[in-house]
Amino acid sequence: MAAVIFTDYSSSTAAAAAAVARLLPSSRYRFGDGVLHSRQSLLLHFAPRNPIMLRTTATSCASASPSVVTASMVAETSAKVIDGKSIAKQIRDEITVEISRMKDTVGVVPGLAVILVGDRKDSATYVRNKKKACESVGINSYEVNLPEDSTEQEVLKHISGFNDDPTVHGILVQLPLPSHMNEQNILNSVCIEKDVDGFHPLNIGRLAMRGREPLFVSCTPKGCIELLHRYGVEIKGRRAVVIGRSNIVGTPAALLLQREDATVSVVHSRTKNPEEITRQADIIIAAVGQANMVRGNWIKPGAVVIDVGINAVEDAKSAKGYRLVGDVCYEEACKIASAITPVPGGVGPMTIAMLLSNTLSSAKRIHNFK
Amino acid sequence: MAAVIFTDYSSSTAAAAAAVARLLPSSRYRFGDGVLHSRQSLLLHFAPRNPIMLRTTATSCASASPSVVTASMVAETSAKVIDGKSIAKQIRDEITVEISRMKDTVGVVPGLAVILVGDRKDSATYVRNKKKACESVGINSYEVNLPEDSTEQEVLKHISGFNDDPTVHGILVQLPLPSHMNEQNILNSVCIEKDVDGFHPLNIGRLAMRGREPLFVSCTPKGCIELLHRYGVEIKGRRAVVIGRSNIVGTPAALLLQREDATVSVVHSRTKNPEEITRQADIIIAAVGQANMVRGNWIKPGAVVIDVGINAVEDAKSAKGYRLVGDVCYEEACKIASAITPVPGGVGPMTIAMLLSNTLSSAKRIHNFK
Repeated sequence: MAAVIFTDYSSSTAAAAAAVARLLPSSRYRFGDGVLHSRQSLLLHFAPRNPIMLRTTATSCASASPSVVTASMVAETSAKVIDGKSIAKQIRDEITVEISRMKDTVGVVPGLAVILVGDRKDSATYVRNKKKACESVGINSYEVNLPEDSTEQEVLKHISGFNDDPTVHGILVQLPLPSHMNEQNILNSVCIEKDVDGFHPLNIGRLAMRGREPLFVSCTPKGCIELLHRYGVEIKGRRAVVIGRSNIVGTPAALLLQREDATVSVVHSRTKNPEEITRQADIIIAAVGQANMVRGNWIKPGAVVIDVGINAVEDAKSAKGYRLVGDVCYEEACKIASAITPVPGGVGPMTIAMLLSNTLSSAKRIHNFK
Repeated sequence: MAAVIFTDYSSSTAAAAAAVARLLPSSRYRFGDGVLHSRQSLLLHFAPRNPIMLRTTATSCASASPSVVTASMVAETSAKVIDGKSIAKQIRDEITVEISRMKDTVGVVPGLAVILVGDRKDSATYVRNKKKACESVGINSYEVNLPEDSTEQEVLKHISGFNDDPTVHGILVQLPLPSHMNEQNILNSVCIEKDVDGFHPLNIGRLAMRGREPLFVSCTPKGCIELLHRYGVEIKGRRAVVIGRSNIVGTPAALLLQREDATVSVVHSRTKNPEEITRQADIIIAAVGQANMVRGNWIKPGAVVIDVGINAVEDAKSAKGYRLVGDVCYEEACKIASAITPVPGGVGPMTIAMLLSNTLSSAKRIHNFK
């Protein structure tokens, strides 16, 4: 599929959200803040000039394949909307209080360093958003901007500097890096104690192992589980299906669910009967990057659905020419599920809240502040 | 359940195997060599003087619960026996040839160091068996025996020495360690390039991540997958269920299967309907350490069953007073599955073959020998 994959996303206009809203029951749907803090963890598929792709990804899932709209889906909308924007706001407020307490008690202010290489406009926007989010909760942010033709060694030198800098408690390297750099080398050079992204294999390994604790859990999957917790969804003993097995969302999400004693199945591109397996799940986390892929008939009545996908589909009615939809066909799913995250305004706002949370946790650990 | 859990197992008598054989169709069953090279990766449940446990774990699965013997199970035995002993022998022969070629070409002989602390007889036996296996293929083995009251620092000193020793390509710490030592600290001190057990979280993390390669995969799960490969079992696109989520078998086995594009579900002690989920699997890996837990009616007709469990159940007819059975009720399963590993003689012999294979791979990597 000729989808353009973005590695992060930010939109400050309400137009795209408004376009999505036209398809949704307005009484239940709440807008996000228009800013999706997804970083590289979310695949954004957007191909406004590719009608073939748009036919497959479906601008409106029900109209694309009406045969899957079952009788039960004609019933009244019943799913509770899991309001990621509101929960993220609550978490940011909690972080603000903790940072203030830490500053007052031990005189330490958490610091997040972000390294940006090159002049991609989208990357610059994401970095700016992170900086703003840090400021809003009282985290110091440090930014290094390097030209596109910098050497890998220059980037490594800056990471090394932040590794040694006691005022920095978290280090982020904005992806993608220029193609002449080895991303794996660069990410591995971030010291494990400051890997607030949780992408280091040592953190993933500890996450997978019983009796071990990762220092950090990647922000998006952590945000998914946090939403389940805050909405009181029981995980232990439940069947969970994770759709997608990326290093930054699907795999850590599956490992997190298993740590919480769910029985987890991972569905991916090679799975022959994804809908049948997904239909067994009490909890679904969809993180595959395909607009509206999970239809109403994939969902067991009463299941809880966490939609990580953020996909742009062509929409002539929108000023931007597109609107954002998830991996789950919301208009169908909201009639079957007991609770569901909207897109935007579901998982998106949680990602940056978890980044702030990881930075605070790091500072607390380094300074042994309880 | 009051099961005694051993961390390794070796038996040089044919008595236990013979006791198992009485329950099995002799024309299909081949004895193992009587030596189970399982190390700490296998849970051996043995409670010869605990009749309650024996009732629950069942010396003969069919007689313990005849109601689960279905019509199809009365039919002729149909499963192909996956002969781990024979495959392990074949792999050892291949390793012997490679070691000889390496010695002749670059003058390097792979070396495996084993550290044994204390005077547990079982541990001493396992170490002796590993030493013998090394000798049989031409690997140099180095052994350090430390008294029970050694300090953690003494163990760490020896590991550090082996980490620096260019003639050593693999390091094993025989478990269990005395209780005054921190196992995690000690295992983490083995340098990643010589962690032939694959227990280091960095290796587990790389195993979990797409696009990353672990330096070593734990011996028992690697042996399970190797058996599937050598018997031509297709993994890609198949449904797989792993029963058990231990760090050393279940979790890496699930990650390995997923790397090979199976759709994997992990069943564990908190799973509410394990038999229903297991029945969906084309491939079952049972690694839970409960005698005969997986019954015939848990298995989809034609599934492939890999039984990692080695459990001792009381058997008055045996000279030793017990016999060995797997986690799967073999006498039922062999009538439903298309292929199955016996216990003993299935996964057991593969574990030490994989240890030798990992040691050879390590030496090749360190000396850049193709």
